Amino acid sequence: MAMIRNGMVDIHAQPIRVASLGALERWDGRRGPGNLNAHACMARAIELAREHGIGAVGLGNSNHWMRGGNYGWQAADAGVIGICWSNTLPNVPAWGTTIPLIGNNPLIIAVPRASGHVVLDMAMSQFSYGALASYRLRGEQLPVPGGFDRDGALTRDPAAIEASRRPLPIGFWKGSGLALMLDMVAALLAGGRATHEIPRVPEQETGMSQVFLAFDLQSIAGADEATRIVDAILADLQVRYPGERALETRRQYLDEGIPVEPSAWQFLERAAAS
Amino acid sequence: MAMIRNGMVDIHAQPIRVASLGALERWDGRRGPGNLNAHACMARAIELAREHGIGAVGLGNSNHWMRGGNYGWQAADAGVIGICWSNTLPNVPAWGTTIPLIGNNPLIIAVPRASGHVVLDMAMSQFSYGALASYRLRGEQLPVPGGFDRDGALTRDPAAIEASRRPLPIGFWKGSGLALMLDMVAALLAGGRATHEIPRVPEQETGMSQVFLAFDLQSIAGADEATRIVDAILADLQVRYPGERALETRRQYLDEGIPVEPSAWQFLERAAAS
Repeated sequence: MAMIRNGMVDIHAQPIRVASLGALERWDGRRGPGNLNAHACMARAIELAREHGIGAVGLGNSNHWMRGGNYGWQAADAGVIGICWSNTLPNVPAWGTTIPLIGNNPLIIAVPRASGHVVLDMAMSQFSYGALASYRLRGEQLPVPGGFDRDGALTRDPAAIEASRRPLPIGFWKGSGLALMLDMVAALLAGGRATHEIPRVPEQETGMSQVFLAFDLQSIAGADEATRIVDAILADLQVRYPGERALETRRQYLDEGIPVEPSAWQFLERAAAS
Repeated sequence: MAMIRNGMVDIHAQPIRVASLGALERWDGRRGPGNLNAHACMARAIELAREHGIGAVGLGNSNHWMRGGNYGWQAADAGVIGICWSNTLPNVPAWGTTIPLIGNNPLIIAVPRASGHVVLDMAMSQFSYGALASYRLRGEQLPVPGGFDRDGALTRDPAAIEASRRPLPIGFWKGSGLALMLDMVAALLAGGRATHEIPRVPEQETGMSQVFLAFDLQSIAGADEATRIVDAILADLQVRYPGERALETRRQYLDEGIPVEPSAWQFLERAAAS
């Protein structure tokens, strides 16, 4: 809401296609609502996949897509494999540096499955700032080191990482490299901003670049083969699969309603009245 | 060589296309040499990208592709963005388990650049068994925890991780999920084996599934825009970019020759004579 009011999000803008190469397209999000732009571009990638086997859309000039996993579920609901990612403002130091230079660039990989889609939705930082705040408010230490303190020592203290602004990328140097490449490929396919061009102030985080891929799984594998492969992998896994908890939570919310923080609810009520 | 002798690798086999959906194809590696199969399938993905903007090949029934980065360099040399990954035998416990169930599934992302391609080549384990052995032989501790010891404690002792067979996935639960999804998507697109179906004995590690993607960067972005975007990202990075060290090493090897471990060289001489 703040970004609608400060002009970063134009609620009237519609995304438009600016280039087309068969199965690969480039779209301009025109600074419209990030979630609507992302949904439109995954829908277009799915259409392209039905026509060409695979579809790819680079979306530039967009805004925060909110929960990235949504577009994975969207693809899986359509029976296709969906892969998408976004860049973000600089919020993680590249490995070997102390100042946030790379984004935590969420990556989503979704596989459709009749008895519950398998959907991975992960950012490239070990813990988001939201997760750090949650641990701090509960008075808990992180289960594993999540960043450096102001003295450059690895720490499990969430407040120390919030203060240093030095959260860890997953896998140290590895997640740092992966975040860089996701940013680079997104900016190139979208013709849009890279992380270093996105303002560091969260309420000015606009112009993000995103990639949406869809693979026509049903046509290449057939439903029976796909079910057999996925079910056999999950039968061997022993632990919960990516997206399983989200599915449980969704069922619970559909039954019981969605819990909202009282302060957030009050904010919404005030905003609706104003 | 052992796997040629034990029949796992058929040096006479050629990969064949078994399904086609426009820009997405499925190939059967017929248990041929993994590096030749992978090269052929990335070449095919590049051809498909020239025709459709993006090309995708799922390759099943193949063998170890050796250095995965090669196929990223191959794509970048052709001026396209290349993304590829392979599954492997089970060699990393999924997060929350103690027995190797997931592969370390290398992922390669390559972006072409006139002054040196940017190529990320990373596996999903924090340290490979080869890296653990190198640290052990040098008498060094790992720079960060690399796995669990036999008592289930995180450790930087490479020998303790070799003994427990419990190396860490990158980012703990995150890399575990990413490795699982890469395996699942590869098996689905290839119609091939998933990690749990690949024998755990390294000399019987055959039938791997791989994915090769190529994006026609020059046509969607143009050379000038691509150069501007990539150079600006790297100018901001402060540290070496993925592939920079490999480029330096390659230049050194071209000048000075390639160093080979004496024991490996002796093995090759004996093998050539037999």
